[in-house]
Amino acid sequence: MILESKKQIINFVNEYKKTLKVKINKSKFSNLKSWEVSDKNIRHSSGGFFSIIGLDVKTNYGNVFHWQQPIIKQNEIGILGFISKIIEDKRYFLVQCKTEPGNINFVQLSPTVQATKSNYFQKHGGIKPHYLDFFLDVNKKVLVDQIQSEQGARFYKKRNRNIVVEVYEEIKLKNNFFWTSLESLVDCLQIDNLVNMDTRTVLSSLLFIDKKLTYNPSPDFGFATKQLLHWMVKLKCNYELDTNEMPLKTLDSWVFSENQIKHISEKYFKVIPVQVLIEGREVKEWCQPMIESAQSGLCAFIIKKINNKYHFLVQGKVECGNLDVIEMAPTVQCLTGEYKGIKSEMLPFLKYVLNSKNKIIDNFQSEEGGRFFREENRNVIVQANEDEAFELPENYIWVTLSQLSFLITFNNIVNVQARNLVSYFVTKEDVYG
Amino acid sequence: MILESKKQIINFVNEYKKTLKVKINKSKFSNLKSWEVSDKNIRHSSGGFFSIIGLDVKTNYGNVFHWQQPIIKQNEIGILGFISKIIEDKRYFLVQCKTEPGNINFVQLSPTVQATKSNYFQKHGGIKPHYLDFFLDVNKKVLVDQIQSEQGARFYKKRNRNIVVEVYEEIKLKNNFFWTSLESLVDCLQIDNLVNMDTRTVLSSLLFIDKKLTYNPSPDFGFATKQLLHWMVKLKCNYELDTNEMPLKTLDSWVFSENQIKHISEKYFKVIPVQVLIEGREVKEWCQPMIESAQSGLCAFIIKKINNKYHFLVQGKVECGNLDVIEMAPTVQCLTGEYKGIKSEMLPFLKYVLNSKNKIIDNFQSEEGGRFFREENRNVIVQANEDEAFELPENYIWVTLSQLSFLITFNNIVNVQARNLVSYFVTKEDVYG
Repeated sequence: MILESKKQIINFVNEYKKTLKVKINKSKFSNLKSWEVSDKNIRHSSGGFFSIIGLDVKTNYGNVFHWQQPIIKQNEIGILGFISKIIEDKRYFLVQCKTEPGNINFVQLSPTVQATKSNYFQKHGGIKPHYLDFFLDVNKKVLVDQIQSEQGARFYKKRNRNIVVEVYEEIKLKNNFFWTSLESLVDCLQIDNLVNMDTRTVLSSLLFIDKKLTYNPSPDFGFATKQLLHWMVKLKCNYELDTNEMPLKTLDSWVFSENQIKHISEKYFKVIPVQVLIEGREVKEWCQPMIESAQSGLCAFIIKKINNKYHFLVQGKVECGNLDVIEMAPTVQCLTGEYKGIKSEMLPFLKYVLNSKNKIIDNFQSEEGGRFFREENRNVIVQANEDEAFELPENYIWVTLSQLSFLITFNNIVNVQARNLVSYFVTKEDVYG
Repeated sequence: MILESKKQIINFVNEYKKTLKVKINKSKFSNLKSWEVSDKNIRHSSGGFFSIIGLDVKTNYGNVFHWQQPIIKQNEIGILGFISKIIEDKRYFLVQCKTEPGNINFVQLSPTVQATKSNYFQKHGGIKPHYLDFFLDVNKKVLVDQIQSEQGARFYKKRNRNIVVEVYEEIKLKNNFFWTSLESLVDCLQIDNLVNMDTRTVLSSLLFIDKKLTYNPSPDFGFATKQLLHWMVKLKCNYELDTNEMPLKTLDSWVFSENQIKHISEKYFKVIPVQVLIEGREVKEWCQPMIESAQSGLCAFIIKKINNKYHFLVQGKVECGNLDVIEMAPTVQCLTGEYKGIKSEMLPFLKYVLNSKNKIIDNFQSEEGGRFFREENRNVIVQANEDEAFELPENYIWVTLSQLSFLITFNNIVNVQARNLVSYFVTKEDVYG
């Protein structure tokens, strides 16, 4: 099945949803079958999957220098993989309609495969993910293969492998899979909460696909990249991040009850136990802890033409789960606190973004539905006029899309929120510059 | 003072040594003034400097899947900095004759500044390092600025900032400093244990200096780099590394006495307490723990012309202190075990390297004298014939010098042993290709 437009895709998703019955109930920790809840952590009894641990964080970045919080720990590098195929001279990607407990609307568009090693080895029951073998086959042609970070405020050094393999053979499609083009997939980003986070991060790696672009599209690219790396080195040396795992139960300012772990201020997020029942062709039933955000957040880039090339205003941001102190983040990234009530001077460019009349992108997009309970964040791209001047704090810098795209090929440089916003531009050659 | 040859440099070092009196004595842990030795760790009473901690290591790499060991922890990113200056159209670097307790021959050639943040703030006494301010001045022209890893088997995620700044003004030289050229400095690598490790790592970043090379010296460079990154991603996904800090005193198989911490097998290394007295223009006296290796090791690259370009045979190596699972290491890196007695089939290419009649480099070079007690390792480059075929294990790959040089600009990709061997080639444009 090839779907050639956003409209066809929406119809397909709606038809597929009719075949499903989904029940997601908040529960009690004591009802979390196959999970062990102790003073130390919440872990799956297989030892695999993921766990919720306590983290003590010290930093000289931002306004709070010491805090403690629950965080998701998942040592395994999972696979987020698309199968791609040229059909009648056009490139298509195999998309999965995936049902996840945290998804707004239950079903969202996902990569062909989302799988952790625990999934491959069926550690927590269930069947082996469809099409997984295409990604384990070393003889397949690999178009993209990158390790990428996940949300640094919620995951402790978690990463996924973003991978795209090209196939030539016929593939028999399961009822919740379809082929579509990059253009149609990017079109779907215009619909709130339709394209899941894992798809968006893989999309961001496809900027080079089928283009004659190399690592060196302009004569000053090498020099500019060196300047960018110098800027990152300075920030990594100036900002300190000291994190230590600690028992979940002794976290300062977090309160435990039988149905949630929450911050005493009611801010940030809760850890909640959830019971899941998904009835379709297969019946799946399980329990797991999830993260429920206290509010909807905001991720925004300001972009601007400089010397006739689009530049993205990037910030170097410390997040407690970062592998290497800082990553490049959007101009405004406000997920863990309430941006609507915040004093705008606390967050550079927040007021500018909210007040801008030139929002070229403005959607709600979902966080990963396997861990986050109905979390959506506003994704905004604001275009500034060429003659607007901005005064940049030391941890902000203008970066072209081709540089971002280049840096995405290295792991742990561009964070997931920035990559997700970049995914809007994957087919926009005029912005690429 | 400008020294224009290896001979002049050796004379200068010898004259300087005559002005010094150095006494290094092994001592008892209870005599380590300003250090706190507890069951948990050995730490400086200022909380800064460095500490010796215990580490539990689990991995699926290599032949040993679980072990425990002492390791050096130092969260601060130190500065290894050279001042550079063009004098009469020629580029010079300001070299320090530095006396360190672990140095073979006491005095070795060091960067202009070697300093940790504890040094800047004089946490453990002493005076502020000379010329440090040149590196803290944001208005200086920066030629190189890279964060680089240290020995992954001995340091827990330790990194230094490798930085070169260019000056235009006159600089008054202290009696143990001199200017020299890159060529003379590289010549000094031919002398055993003269150029210290910190100098060698900064040298490795200078391949681009004053050359018209960009990130894209050949048309297939981008493609080859993408292939290299794909190879690294595969290794990072296949190899697991799970490290956890633990109390030093409960380390399995390590024995404590009042004058050392050693492995029951007498292999690997010891932690020893050392008393230091250095009398020159200033008198410095202090105590510290050091690492004493049980044997001299071997670091070797096999290089070979492929398609008329020199390639280096690189291995992806897991070391317990690595920030990101694997880094690119020399073809043979055998520091922690005894390579002379080892069965050669246990270590790929060891026999080839030892038996080769075409060793174009063969020197002893020192590890960092501030932490390692008289540790020298044999540094070898073996050139293979163009028609020699090698069968490569999955974690080995041929890489050009320009690719290595490019990857060195990113942190935690090329390990310190590989960078140190690369430093031999910093002036060899024919090898650069």
